[in-house]
Amino acid sequence: MNPTSATRSVDLNSDLGEGFGAWKMGDDNAILEIVSSANVACGMHAGDPHIMARTFSRAKELGVAVGAHPGYPDLWGFGRRELPFSATEIEQFVAYQVGAAKGISTYVGHPITYVKPHGALGNLSQVDETVAGAIVRAIAAVDRELVLLTFPDGHATRIAKEMGLRTCAEIFADRAYTAEGRLVSRKLPGAVLHDCEEVAARVLRMVHAGGVETMDGTLLPMEIGSICVHGDSPGAIQMAAAIRTRLTEAGIAIKPFA
Amino acid sequence: MNPTSATRSVDLNSDLGEGFGAWKMGDDNAILEIVSSANVACGMHAGDPHIMARTFSRAKELGVAVGAHPGYPDLWGFGRRELPFSATEIEQFVAYQVGAAKGISTYVGHPITYVKPHGALGNLSQVDETVAGAIVRAIAAVDRELVLLTFPDGHATRIAKEMGLRTCAEIFADRAYTAEGRLVSRKLPGAVLHDCEEVAARVLRMVHAGGVETMDGTLLPMEIGSICVHGDSPGAIQMAAAIRTRLTEAGIAIKPFA
Amino acid sequence: MNPTSATRSVDLNSDLGEGFGAWKMGDDNAILEIVSSANVACGMHAGDPHIMARTFSRAKELGVAVGAHPGYPDLWGFGRRELPFSATEIEQFVAYQVGAAKGISTYVGHPITYVKPHGALGNLSQVDETVAGAIVRAIAAVDRELVLLTFPDGHATRIAKEMGLRTCAEIFADRAYTAEGRLVSRKLPGAVLHDCEEVAARVLRMVHAGGVETMDGTLLPMEIGSICVHGDSPGAIQMAAAIRTRLTEAGIAIKPFA
Amino acid sequence: MNPTSATRSVDLNSDLGEGFGAWKMGDDNAILEIVSSANVACGMHAGDPHIMARTFSRAKELGVAVGAHPGYPDLWGFGRRELPFSATEIEQFVAYQVGAAKGISTYVGHPITYVKPHGALGNLSQVDETVAGAIVRAIAAVDRELVLLTFPDGHATRIAKEMGLRTCAEIFADRAYTAEGRLVSRKLPGAVLHDCEEVAARVLRMVHAGGVETMDGTLLPMEIGSICVHGDSPGAIQMAAAIRTRLTEAGIAIKPFA
Repeated sequence: MNPTSATRSVDLNSDLGEGFGAWKMGDDNAILEIVSSANVACGMHAGDPHIMARTFSRAKELGVAVGAHPGYPDLWGFGRRELPFSATEIEQFVAYQVGAAKGISTYVGHPITYVKPHGALGNLSQVDETVAGAIVRAIAAVDRELVLLTFPDGHATRIAKEMGLRTCAEIFADRAYTAEGRLVSRKLPGAVLHDCEEVAARVLRMVHAGGVETMDGTLLPMEIGSICVHGDSPGAIQMAAAIRTRLTEAGIAIKPFA
Repeated sequence: MNPTSATRSVDLNSDLGEGFGAWKMGDDNAILEIVSSANVACGMHAGDPHIMARTFSRAKELGVAVGAHPGYPDLWGFGRRELPFSATEIEQFVAYQVGAAKGISTYVGHPITYVKPHGALGNLSQVDETVAGAIVRAIAAVDRELVLLTFPDGHATRIAKEMGLRTCAEIFADRAYTAEGRLVSRKLPGAVLHDCEEVAARVLRMVHAGGVETMDGTLLPMEIGSICVHGDSPGAIQMAAAIRTRLTEAGIAIKPFA
Repeated sequence: MNPTSATRSVDLNSDLGEGFGAWKMGDDNAILEIVSSANVACGMHAGDPHIMARTFSRAKELGVAVGAHPGYPDLWGFGRRELPFSATEIEQFVAYQVGAAKGISTYVGHPITYVKPHGALGNLSQVDETVAGAIVRAIAAVDRELVLLTFPDGHATRIAKEMGLRTCAEIFADRAYTAEGRLVSRKLPGAVLHDCEEVAARVLRMVHAGGVETMDGTLLPMEIGSICVHGDSPGAIQMAAAIRTRLTEAGIAIKPFA
Repeated sequence: MNPTSATRSVDLNSDLGEGFGAWKMGDDNAILEIVSSANVACGMHAGDPHIMARTFSRAKELGVAVGAHPGYPDLWGFGRRELPFSATEIEQFVAYQVGAAKGISTYVGHPITYVKPHGALGNLSQVDETVAGAIVRAIAAVDRELVLLTFPDGHATRIAKEMGLRTCAEIFADRAYTAEGRLVSRKLPGAVLHDCEEVAARVLRMVHAGGVETMDGTLLPMEIGSICVHGDSPGAIQMAAAIRTRLTEAGIAIKPFA
């Protein structure tokens, strides 16, 4: 039950740079001390050039890898709403956002290495083949070196692999999984786990075992490339810190996947 | 007085993709048939990902070179107002816009080769050393291969040359010049020329002579890399077409500078 | 076949003030000379305070009645997309827009007298009871004196009447009607009529007859309060002018319904 | 040293509803329990229809008076930047925002009774006669019953009085005053007071005395209509609560000025 070489390190990722102008969302400085990869909002659902530059710069100082975190063009809805864009329009606004993130991250000397779709765009990329294809085509057209970080199952990862893009599978530290490896709906009891130490212990077990623990108590084997943690509340940061501590104490290094 | 080898060809550039959503600005399809370089708005003062992609695609089909045309983040003011941004903020939003334009132009398979600042940002880049430095530093940090297209005099061109960036000097087909080679203020009589044939003849004379004709009737020698024409009214398109015709009939090819 | 007293006058309405900043949509000055009621965009899908004030002022000079023309908050999509807003949110953004229109129209001394929902919001107000209820509740809560101008059938008109609001039925000059009095889908052949004189003659017949002519050639009796015409192309303005001429020559005055 | 009848009550006001979509600014629920007047952002520098409605509704439940808090149209800059708008444009966007606030506050059954300019617009209204005139003309044109809440000195209050509008003088609980009754610049030491109890005691003394204590230790007589407190940090809320407690313990009721 010792970790294999593949599990001597794992990535922790979190959504960052989600403020806009004078507004903040979460404690970016605190979470940047914990994670190894920062998904940075690209200005269309959150983020602005100044926040993006500051986030990329601070990540550079801390050795945290950075990725583009594109979402629906929807500041008001924070990218959480499914908007009626065509596949072509999605391709175009993803290409725009990935390009903008490349521009600012290159400007600060710490270029992005991956892309993780945000919010409703991320959710649809798993279950809607049209949306998934649009996102993957945009990434491939802008820069084939970028890795797609997202759900291991679902259309986006499959299409990316078919098109020869590298992918990284992420799991969610605080979410319950169905027997099929899907996230349990937030509307159901037990969907979100709240106890820091319990979550941290479960993450360690899953990394060791190389799979996710499902609600019915079985292990579903799955390559775990990255673990998504949150920084948008004091409790979330405490949980992320507990996960990091538990992993590093067990000899699992926290390192960027890309 | 024959054209030298350097004047066997010249570039015509115009601002394009300046609509937003359902709104149009000028007849892009008409002007794209005339020019050799298209300055494409980047979404902050005009343009959106869909319009950008369509403009880059059509330019590709026609063999027209494309550049980023970044402006102040000001949809309402169309980038024509001087806004109170710091030098650092200007660097960052220019890096953002150039990156976005690289993203979408790469996505359509016709990458940008140059940058021309728009509106108030362009005007300030000539006379305000701080703004000029911010713009040039952003371009240099994002991609040193990009050429700066702007006024031959002024701070931006000087700083770009000092930093080792390539520059291209543009003149305005329909504007009068002072003895010092500056544009005559639009508030003064005679600042803007309206007669198509007269403008076309003057452009040809200036290209042949290698300099601009000033208001006092003398020739100010100047390397002319590109001639800016407009497409925002039927009259403007007619004038641009007259210039192209006059130049090509004189054996001056219309070719991208970059 | 003489017009009854009820048909000695009729209203012509059109959507106006649909530019934003430097962008224009249609020729407002031309259409304002033709219509008797101007539906003015309220800043969320089109329009800005300056355009609103200019439109209300010019309407005042010409004796044209004005109404609020609220739409989905969607500058990019021009209010033509169905966005995922809840009924409560729709109530609130309609109340906001109607309030803003009251503010600016009162400021110029020519207060709005009616509300006509725009684009996707207008279409949904006919067929979606939830959206219709939200719009009507917002109008009633802000100002019960405002008249609802919209499709005579459909949920919005019915709910408005139930709540004791006044309504005005509009027909579309250039659109074919089904036997049930619904607009024929734009996707079907013959849905939109293009011949100016034919459209004008049909409008006059319908006003005289007090109903709409349907595709199968019968007359569907309907109280016609206003006729919607367009100003977004030279052809549209010509058609609107032809309608006005035909009606006035037949002794039907063009007067605001409200 | 007993309070006169004029000082048996005083108003506490605070800026509220300054979030946008998913973003929050300060703890509105906490500060609404403390103040008697809520200045509600109108959607152009902060606030959206949903946040406005929620803030007006909660204020209604608590018996807190509400006012419009218009600012420059500048979400990115939170209304803190001086933007190059003409006097006419300022008139129009203030009329728009006041109208929108009237719309939503009427919709929730708790109409606004006053207007307080926000941020850069507020600061300019004191020192720039053109901006001040524009703001006051907009208020007067939309609704002459609305009271102007702002600095007692400065152009806006003077012009409002000349035009026959009612005004209410506000002082700032935590700011030092010059001998002339102006706020000491934030750049100078001692400009902002931080000790809750000291601030509360000073506020009580000023209310009793009917004037502001200046930096040189003298009392400048001034009619104090309202005291501005903040809710954008835990410390600010604690200070506001201390002021309320000190005043009420001294028999000064906290009541809306309007």
